[in-house]
Amino acid sequence: MKAKPSSSSLAITTDIILPSDTNALHGLFGGELLARVDRICCIAAQRHSNHICVTVAVNNVSFAKVIPLGSMMTIEAKVTRAFSSSMEVIADVFLEDRNSGERTKVNEAIYTFVAVDQKGKPQSIPEIIAETNLEKQRYESALRRRQLSLVVAGKMKPKEATELKALFL
Amino acid sequence: MKAKPSSSSLAITTDIILPSDTNALHGLFGGELLARVDRICCIAAQRHSNHICVTVAVNNVSFAKVIPLGSMMTIEAKVTRAFSSSMEVIADVFLEDRNSGERTKVNEAIYTFVAVDQKGKPQSIPEIIAETNLEKQRYESALRRRQLSLVVAGKMKPKEATELKALFL
Amino acid sequence: MKAKPSSSSLAITTDIILPSDTNALHGLFGGELLARVDRICCIAAQRHSNHICVTVAVNNVSFAKVIPLGSMMTIEAKVTRAFSSSMEVIADVFLEDRNSGERTKVNEAIYTFVAVDQKGKPQSIPEIIAETNLEKQRYESALRRRQLSLVVAGKMKPKEATELKALFL
Amino acid sequence: MKAKPSSSSLAITTDIILPSDTNALHGLFGGELLARVDRICCIAAQRHSNHICVTVAVNNVSFAKVIPLGSMMTIEAKVTRAFSSSMEVIADVFLEDRNSGERTKVNEAIYTFVAVDQKGKPQSIPEIIAETNLEKQRYESALRRRQLSLVVAGKMKPKEATELKALFL
Amino acid sequence: MKAKPSSSSLAITTDIILPSDTNALHGLFGGELLARVDRICCIAAQRHSNHICVTVAVNNVSFAKVIPLGSMMTIEAKVTRAFSSSMEVIADVFLEDRNSGERTKVNEAIYTFVAVDQKGKPQSIPEIIAETNLEKQRYESALRRRQLSLVVAGKMKPKEATELKALFL
Amino acid sequence: MKAKPSSSSLAITTDIILPSDTNALHGLFGGELLARVDRICCIAAQRHSNHICVTVAVNNVSFAKVIPLGSMMTIEAKVTRAFSSSMEVIADVFLEDRNSGERTKVNEAIYTFVAVDQKGKPQSIPEIIAETNLEKQRYESALRRRQLSLVVAGKMKPKEATELKALFL
Repeated sequence: MKAKPSSSSLAITTDIILPSDTNALHGLFGGELLARVDRICCIAAQRHSNHICVTVAVNNVSFAKVIPLGSMMTIEAKVTRAFSSSMEVIADVFLEDRNSGERTKVNEAIYTFVAVDQKGKPQSIPEIIAETNLEKQRYESALRRRQLSLVVAGKMKPKEATELKALFL
Repeated sequence: MKAKPSSSSLAITTDIILPSDTNALHGLFGGELLARVDRICCIAAQRHSNHICVTVAVNNVSFAKVIPLGSMMTIEAKVTRAFSSSMEVIADVFLEDRNSGERTKVNEAIYTFVAVDQKGKPQSIPEIIAETNLEKQRYESALRRRQLSLVVAGKMKPKEATELKALFL
Repeated sequence: MKAKPSSSSLAITTDIILPSDTNALHGLFGGELLARVDRICCIAAQRHSNHICVTVAVNNVSFAKVIPLGSMMTIEAKVTRAFSSSMEVIADVFLEDRNSGERTKVNEAIYTFVAVDQKGKPQSIPEIIAETNLEKQRYESALRRRQLSLVVAGKMKPKEATELKALFL
Repeated sequence: MKAKPSSSSLAITTDIILPSDTNALHGLFGGELLARVDRICCIAAQRHSNHICVTVAVNNVSFAKVIPLGSMMTIEAKVTRAFSSSMEVIADVFLEDRNSGERTKVNEAIYTFVAVDQKGKPQSIPEIIAETNLEKQRYESALRRRQLSLVVAGKMKPKEATELKALFL
Repeated sequence: MKAKPSSSSLAITTDIILPSDTNALHGLFGGELLARVDRICCIAAQRHSNHICVTVAVNNVSFAKVIPLGSMMTIEAKVTRAFSSSMEVIADVFLEDRNSGERTKVNEAIYTFVAVDQKGKPQSIPEIIAETNLEKQRYESALRRRQLSLVVAGKMKPKEATELKALFL
Repeated sequence: MKAKPSSSSLAITTDIILPSDTNALHGLFGGELLARVDRICCIAAQRHSNHICVTVAVNNVSFAKVIPLGSMMTIEAKVTRAFSSSMEVIADVFLEDRNSGERTKVNEAIYTFVAVDQKGKPQSIPEIIAETNLEKQRYESALRRRQLSLVVAGKMKPKEATELKALFL
């Protein structure tokens, strides 16, 4: 299987925040954002793997800023690293000022997907080629995050998580 | 106000068709597609005008193909021509084959938006610069479509619709 | 197959506009209106044809007025003309004043549906009998609109669209 | 305040059952039906009272038959009796066979609404004039149902519920 | 089949009222409450019967208080009495004050469910053991409510409804 | 401010998976689960803090098993540790077998919330008292997870994350 550049998995979605998407403070409801990020990350994973993909973990999402009613919000997702049948996907969330057209990054999210067939059996997938500086940095750190997940899930002993361990020494 | 290229209004959204989006034949429900196209066209209009935009007309949408459950669907919208405070926006709808990654155009939609302030009062907007061949062709034909709308709405006499009339002679 | 009067396809729906149906200006979100009109027009088409019907085109929808939160909105749809397996359906949208009970027409929409079997194969349908003045006028103009659609879709040459052409001469 | 005929409050809604409306047995989800009946009964109540109306009770709803995916369902609601500021509204639910066009009554529902102003204060409303046999029968029995509600709520002693009591003697 | 205590069917759901759940007065939309109560009562019925359950009737729901946007609302449902294959389920609706943590009962609802197999055929179910005072009182009155439903549906003559009749003498 | 036991923040929600909640493989759509977990964790956070709470991060969610259409799913959330104005909330997701009544844990999720006033300003909150073994273990590890979040966000140097560092030595 031929490795594919991270950029070829890029998936983009832009939408307007309507009243039905908001919480009682009139900002985007956190759960709604999580659901949208999940869908667009799934598309990035499917573009990379050419298989059905299902979410296996949400590894980190930060909600740095409120996203107000009426905002134009863009989510951009790319596969950052592929393992045998699973992929780490990072999504960046941007707000766009209607008057100036300026775009500000407001949130970031890291999800893991696995490629499966119609019966849910994991499928082999191509490796990722990181090209830009950001892609390379995310590719490198993906391994540490994967070790972290395995440690948290009790599937790897902390002392065997070599890359992760190195951070703290 | 400085004219802006059509391409700078480009708005993109990709999504997966879930069971909650389907009709009784398990394809994307037509009304759901119309609603999504409306939202992404609105974003293109807001990007061009830097104002709140509201839908004033749907001029033409064709549903050439069924969009099945589980599909990855992309909608791309661009402002094709701007008038004093209204804009024609054309959206192209694509399906993407999960296995091959190939993209096929399945539908096309033409909407009209008007730029308004918070109270709904129409606002002046920049003109459009058409650059590619397709943009130029859509820019030209937009005028005929506008005349057609005015004729249909009884706001222009057929014989005064010069560009439109020329088509039939 | 016996022709049926336009009135026998009449489909009506009344609903209240809730916050989940609105846009950021607290009026009915345009896409939501399009989706509702699509559903009620589909019912008119199914009543006329006695078959499953799917949307093939939205030919014209105008949004003349804002429909505010809390409004009572009625949509009435009727088949205006039937061709071999396709139908033009026109929907009128009304607002009803809660205090006076008065009804005002706010929007109009023209959709095209095709009658199909479970596998999506087009089915023959009865002709329409136009009875009232409005029905007759819509029946007549439906042919011009159909020619227009075919011209726009590049399936008919403008000069062959006899009824349409006559308008401009 | 002048009494108004029951028929002038008639509110109608027809819709197609989509997958997003169904339960795990692929029939209309009971809760979804209750929500739709609530909305259309509210419209009947607002048409009669010319005020905002809010649900105060659901007195009886029977689900005699499953409503399958893809069905055309019509709900018709009318105010059956008005008290000082509250109204009983009865809704009949019909299924329509797509092939034959035949309509069958599948369910019936009885709701109570109260007319209020913007602050929620109850408002006086006109009386109902029952005209048809069914309207008269429902008008008569509405009083017994109201006594029943008051008894159930502990706001009336069973022995004071004269009309209701007469039933059992 | 061994009788089971009412408490073993207890089903609980807590949620926050979001803008998409509200009516034009910014309180929980009545239909939305009915739909949620239906789902949680269904779970109580399934816990008691160990079968798929479908709603057959809503016997009584009172909406004593408005439930405002942003509220924390809890619904608790328990089977109160089982008949051959049907069950009465009562749901209590509580609001919780965010600042004090105090809980107030705002509504009550009585639904009837029937246990079925995958094809919709009614299934035998265990009896209910009422333990607390409230459970015992609801168990007793359930029989009267059942007679009432049968009388209302014309399936039992008022004079044969012995338990119900006793109330009025 | 008086510390409160973890158990007093317990929030529970049970629901049935309907077709509108599923993905194309007919299991619960991952994004929908994330949204529901977000809502119930928010309630646990509000119960502990007696303030409005907003999501600031999703720290870890694993989707170990598919949750099929028609399932009864319960989510239980408790605050595991409180910091000055933020709280870690852990949710456990359970499936319940309809026939046997048996409950299996299928997923786990860790979210962070912050208590705010109406204007979004952070508010002081009580500490957590961990009582059971599981509560104590989660209380302990919450500190490491918090350090991890700060490290990942670049707000703490890895070498200063004392508790976290100890894991790897």
